[in-house]
Amino acid sequence: MQGRQIKQCGLFSLTLLATFLHCSCLPHSTGGKPFPETAEEIASYTKVAKSIIDLAVYGNAQNRSYERLADFTDTIGNRVSGSKNLDLAIKYMFSALRKDGLENVHLEPVKIPHWVRGEESAMMLQPRNHTMAILGLGSSVATPQGGRPMGNSMAYPWPNPNDAGPIVRCPMGLPITAVWATLIRSITPFSINSPHTGWQDYQEGVQKIPTACITVEDAMMMARMAKRGQRIVVRLTMNAQTFPDADSFNTVAEIIGSEHPEQVVLLSGHLDSWDVGQGAMDDGGGALISWEALSLLKDLGLRPRRTLRTVLWSAEEQGGVGAQQYFQLHKVNISNFNLVMESDLGTFSPLGLQFTGSAQARAVMAEVMKLLKPINTTTLEEHGEGIDIEMWMDAGVPGASLHVADSRYFWFHHTNGDTMSVQSPIEMNLCSALWAVVAYVVADLEEMLPR
Amino acid sequence: MQGRQIKQCGLFSLTLLATFLHCSCLPHSTGGKPFPETAEEIASYTKVAKSIIDLAVYGNAQNRSYERLADFTDTIGNRVSGSKNLDLAIKYMFSALRKDGLENVHLEPVKIPHWVRGEESAMMLQPRNHTMAILGLGSSVATPQGGRPMGNSMAYPWPNPNDAGPIVRCPMGLPITAVWATLIRSITPFSINSPHTGWQDYQEGVQKIPTACITVEDAMMMARMAKRGQRIVVRLTMNAQTFPDADSFNTVAEIIGSEHPEQVVLLSGHLDSWDVGQGAMDDGGGALISWEALSLLKDLGLRPRRTLRTVLWSAEEQGGVGAQQYFQLHKVNISNFNLVMESDLGTFSPLGLQFTGSAQARAVMAEVMKLLKPINTTTLEEHGEGIDIEMWMDAGVPGASLHVADSRYFWFHHTNGDTMSVQSPIEMNLCSALWAVVAYVVADLEEMLPR
Repeated sequence: MQGRQIKQCGLFSLTLLATFLHCSCLPHSTGGKPFPETAEEIASYTKVAKSIIDLAVYGNAQNRSYERLADFTDTIGNRVSGSKNLDLAIKYMFSALRKDGLENVHLEPVKIPHWVRGEESAMMLQPRNHTMAILGLGSSVATPQGGRPMGNSMAYPWPNPNDAGPIVRCPMGLPITAVWATLIRSITPFSINSPHTGWQDYQEGVQKIPTACITVEDAMMMARMAKRGQRIVVRLTMNAQTFPDADSFNTVAEIIGSEHPEQVVLLSGHLDSWDVGQGAMDDGGGALISWEALSLLKDLGLRPRRTLRTVLWSAEEQGGVGAQQYFQLHKVNISNFNLVMESDLGTFSPLGLQFTGSAQARAVMAEVMKLLKPINTTTLEEHGEGIDIEMWMDAGVPGASLHVADSRYFWFHHTNGDTMSVQSPIEMNLCSALWAVVAYVVADLEEMLPR
Repeated sequence: MQGRQIKQCGLFSLTLLATFLHCSCLPHSTGGKPFPETAEEIASYTKVAKSIIDLAVYGNAQNRSYERLADFTDTIGNRVSGSKNLDLAIKYMFSALRKDGLENVHLEPVKIPHWVRGEESAMMLQPRNHTMAILGLGSSVATPQGGRPMGNSMAYPWPNPNDAGPIVRCPMGLPITAVWATLIRSITPFSINSPHTGWQDYQEGVQKIPTACITVEDAMMMARMAKRGQRIVVRLTMNAQTFPDADSFNTVAEIIGSEHPEQVVLLSGHLDSWDVGQGAMDDGGGALISWEALSLLKDLGLRPRRTLRTVLWSAEEQGGVGAQQYFQLHKVNISNFNLVMESDLGTFSPLGLQFTGSAQARAVMAEVMKLLKPINTTTLEEHGEGIDIEMWMDAGVPGASLHVADSRYFWFHHTNGDTMSVQSPIEMNLCSALWAVVAYVVADLEEMLPR
């Protein structure tokens, strides 16, 4: 994921409020059909849901999504927007989806940012020599040739860095012309000298200065030094470069619907990652279960009434770039989008589904989630989340995101620690099962989800 | 700490057995004096123990050991054997102990290893390019000029690396002449791409080859690649150098005993660290609470019958080098060593004391630990631990080590993550209180601990 946005907190509250307002008037209808009939219809999927779960968790497909993810990330490594690795990843996945026998496998062209980190380093020179682990932020400009020493005469403490959430804004009122660069404490509750990267944007009209994240440990040490009245000088060297936008693709595969092929349940994760670690958690896992869900249904010969479409986004980390272009291209058919799903918060032990939609749609989804009782993931939470699907949700399409036990997510997010070692085959089996059951049943119901 | 030694597992079992054998015949005497009288004598320290605890945990000394440790490690940084930083650390501490008003502050010369890491890197070339995070092991030789590519045709899997414990031995029967270097999976249950270092020794008569630790993540990935039948090639470059032994010092400070100044309770931690992170946990914390204990007693005007001697060892990480020389110099007075204490397993939330000694001595220590009821750390465990005091314990001197909630110890041990960020002032207050109460009471009892 790109990094939670502060404005989403507001959205969350509004969604919650809207739901409370509906609590006292539980829906008796889900569009054209009386609700009890829909509930009965959904309950009739109990056996097929069980067969999907059995295949994913105990059957021949056991550990397949994990093994596929391991092969993918071990072979390609990380794959940042604009990189040769991302091209390789898209080719790998295009070929793998076709080989898997999925339908309508194709690539949809998009233009994506092309920023290259280059060599970077930060050396503390005062009060003592100390090599700092850093990661420049995406879109950052380089430092002037040879690096530039920064003193804390320019330092401006950010109030309550722990409370700021994963978006950092430059404090207001700071005379930006006096600042040569910004060093930001990595936004994580835990670190083993592990700096985080991420995307940043320059406000229009201000001078562009280099920006990098330092470790929690170094930030805490510098805070102690500053408190002691010590002068801190750091030599920062960054050779980042921004190139013209690059050509890339969103990667698509389908199981075409038997009755309403034009109507779509969209499953997704993003194929790009940051340029550190393996991008296994963010978002290899989400991409792979979105593939795996289709594989499971294909293996069972299940073709729903509507089309199941897996889309593996390009350049999510730069602000959902690939997904935005997909939306612009396909929004003309918005009435055919039944449900948009994204997994981008990790594929750890699944807890349930986060959902954004009308109270009527929520009531349907709550019935669907009951089908997941065999793996104890029946919870339907508020607020479907994901930068790649939020424009659909904003436009009124029901949206769902996978909710997992993510307490360690930000330990690894955008670091060199985002590797296959944080993934578990058992957890991925469960995520795949949940993803496949929800997608299949919603795509196969007689009626589309009410808006 | 240097790394737990496998042979200590055996020692532990024997100690445990010896204790069980004594369980059915609880001591009625602690040397010359009937045991009930000793217990009563110890109970009379309840009030003084409380005053020590109050000062450390709630009083003027609150957070002092933490603040001192932060100033020390932020100022000096890490301080590996033979380095200029270790010299600076010893000077810093000598000056600080004198300034604190402790007695007989002096340095005792020792000779210590001088190994310098130099630049090092590992680049995977096949099956794909990947920069690996590594840390060479202490005493390792360098690679030939320009680095050397290693293929996994030479790789030899170590069975159950998780079970091996922190000492790794080269598997028997491996034709060492065919091996150019060894890459070892870092021995930790958790990693964020964080390699560990440590000391290694070459067996006599074998060719010396370079040795480095790789991350858990890379080791797991290489295992997956090998399982897939992929050829792995890594270019390893290490420029480590070993220089002649360097001059250094054990650092000593005392509160001289009022009745038996020649009799000693020794408190210790080691001042050296590895050449990564800040060496705050290993073993800045242990060194600092061994200083703090004396400060607390001095502040309260408490001078025990016997001498309290804090020794901050040099070159523990290379095999207890400074402590071995101390033992050789002072063992002539072994009968005057009442109790030897070492804190080298972290200064996290204290649980109690680990103790090695006769059943009679254990009975006394169990009474002493009851004085720590106000901070709920009354547990007396088996097996006093610590490479710097083990020769005293082997020779029959009672030994004690601080037992803390150390479940995360090996996450940070010998990594760049061993910084002040893993320390807590509250936990260090409690450790200091425990350390001071035990040392003071044992040093002040009418009789020495029975052997």
